[in-house]
Amino acid sequence: MTSGERLRITYELGCAPGEDPAARARDIALEQTVELPPECVPPDVAARMVGRVEALAPLAERRWRVAISYDPATVGSEVPQLLNLLFGNISMKPAILVTGIEWPAPLLGALGGPRLGIAGIRALCRVSERRPLLCTALKPVGLSAQQLAELCYRFALGGIDIIKDDHNLADQPTAPFRERVARCQEAVSQANGETGGHSVYFPQLARGSPAIQEDLALAREAGCRGVMVSPVIVGLDTVRWLAAASGMAVFAHPSMSGVFFQPGHGILPEILYGELYRIVGSDGVIYTNAGGRFDFSQATCDAINANLRKPLGSLRPAFPVPGGGVDVARAPHWVERYGVDTILLIGGSLYAQGDLTRASRRLVDTIRRVCDA
Amino acid sequence: MTSGERLRITYELGCAPGEDPAARARDIALEQTVELPPECVPPDVAARMVGRVEALAPLAERRWRVAISYDPATVGSEVPQLLNLLFGNISMKPAILVTGIEWPAPLLGALGGPRLGIAGIRALCRVSERRPLLCTALKPVGLSAQQLAELCYRFALGGIDIIKDDHNLADQPTAPFRERVARCQEAVSQANGETGGHSVYFPQLARGSPAIQEDLALAREAGCRGVMVSPVIVGLDTVRWLAAASGMAVFAHPSMSGVFFQPGHGILPEILYGELYRIVGSDGVIYTNAGGRFDFSQATCDAINANLRKPLGSLRPAFPVPGGGVDVARAPHWVERYGVDTILLIGGSLYAQGDLTRASRRLVDTIRRVCDA
Repeated sequence: MTSGERLRITYELGCAPGEDPAARARDIALEQTVELPPECVPPDVAARMVGRVEALAPLAERRWRVAISYDPATVGSEVPQLLNLLFGNISMKPAILVTGIEWPAPLLGALGGPRLGIAGIRALCRVSERRPLLCTALKPVGLSAQQLAELCYRFALGGIDIIKDDHNLADQPTAPFRERVARCQEAVSQANGETGGHSVYFPQLARGSPAIQEDLALAREAGCRGVMVSPVIVGLDTVRWLAAASGMAVFAHPSMSGVFFQPGHGILPEILYGELYRIVGSDGVIYTNAGGRFDFSQATCDAINANLRKPLGSLRPAFPVPGGGVDVARAPHWVERYGVDTILLIGGSLYAQGDLTRASRRLVDTIRRVCDA
Repeated sequence: MTSGERLRITYELGCAPGEDPAARARDIALEQTVELPPECVPPDVAARMVGRVEALAPLAERRWRVAISYDPATVGSEVPQLLNLLFGNISMKPAILVTGIEWPAPLLGALGGPRLGIAGIRALCRVSERRPLLCTALKPVGLSAQQLAELCYRFALGGIDIIKDDHNLADQPTAPFRERVARCQEAVSQANGETGGHSVYFPQLARGSPAIQEDLALAREAGCRGVMVSPVIVGLDTVRWLAAASGMAVFAHPSMSGVFFQPGHGILPEILYGELYRIVGSDGVIYTNAGGRFDFSQATCDAINANLRKPLGSLRPAFPVPGGGVDVARAPHWVERYGVDTILLIGGSLYAQGDLTRASRRLVDTIRRVCDA
């Protein structure tokens, strides 16, 4: 087995005064694999399964970088065990941050990545490579299915490419899932018929249990071409299944993912969103953009974008979908900064304008003008 | 609608110098519901759906406690939306800790809680109310299915009540799921036949996608009476489904849950384990005990135990399962501290003794003696 086939994880450790970073590295290598003291592990198992500490270097006072590699037999080829290995039990130990992963090609192949990717989403929405896509969210929770469908119609009439459910829309009595999906898709189709456009509606599949199969069937039946899920809530293995089984576009929403982003502990956003979400099959990854309602730095956003689009085995690139307070007035700025292989998710600042069709059309026109598309 | 029917969440906020805690409370109430500035929300929707800030009180310098209540219509009756509401988008905002929840009875009823609970698990293992149960884990990953079954046999012969997979056992080629489950269950049954005992084997169902249905069917076919899952990895809605659909005992493993336990941000362990895991249907909740390989304080462990057993609507109580470095020598101490309605999960210190049957029997005898059972 060549060393290229091992999964190699880089961590940053925060050490207490006097703590030995080498001992902590060995502890991670054991805890994430055999979970036993070395003397209880048969030597042949230990030699193969225990993580191998490959590098250890100081970063700053009491901060160390360590690289540990794992045999493919420990990892297997399934998402849940990958997550166990990546940050299962060590999530309960202090000051461990996952900052980098080297992926074995067979594992990437087994998990599959985006099925549509950037090119596939462009084809779905018939948007040329010269401009970014525009996305908005249906909200607020509390509107009826008919009211939400009316919003869909206006956004589609204005030329928004992708109209998606807010992640708070589940199966509440105010707008039950079945009725909402049918009416919203119908409204978008009607607008497309009037404009000759190709807007799409992505409902949220909220249930992570096997019931997601029913929800998917309903969405497909209604004519939807894509869906949105929150990977931390429905589970990343469900996202993998959805990408592999549905043939539809899969958008990932960041709900609850912020728990991974504590200072010095967790998984860097560019790894969680930029690699894991892509590897399990997200075609578009929504994240909270710098300068909006949330706290990501510009550097973090740039790194997420770069990872979603970079060469990674045979996987297709995925679209970054910055949102969470992107203002229409700043849209040209973000296009310039992030490039055209981006989907801008703009909600509040369209709603604030009242006339949604007109606000959407103005935004679409601005973006076309900026991109000369 | 009476106020008793609202879901009421208590948060602790860390405020930056000069930051207005009332503004942050209102921001949470909006972000977790309508996700729009107030002026964009129709008044009737705002009145009903936006969270209501009910209390705000200083705790310490720049720390505040705030209580916000939500209309049942916002929450719906499904787990994913409950998680969105509880800690979805605010997971990406700084310094918010969920410290308490008041549950509407209809929501508890809809989610169902443990189907076996403490009494049901006791009946399954035929263990009287006079003593705690004993549990151990099969490890390390890397052993063959036959080797793992041999461990099962020895533990069951020694009288361990519950023998569960290590959470790192997935479907690796070293011990494929199907073969492992069949052989391990067979080994436990054989030991039971020899001793007249009632040990059970709980395999881990690792896949969170709809494939968990196949894994569950295999486990049932093999004769297993319970299963283990990691709720953060498979998704909490999958746990709810498992409890409702399987009729089997459900044990929750804490893998990856540590991401919720950052200082001042996340969900308190006694809420996540003691309430959420129980409410979605866990009969036993494994956590990392104080004084072991992990960092929980004694007070946190006591609070988890108390919440798992306390009256909560019509839900059955669930077993606390402290583990993660519980030493056989300290077992009597933990029984005394935690009481008999506890399952002690002991792994490493049994393995360290070499002769597993003898080590198990000695532990069982000690516990019986201590409990006069």
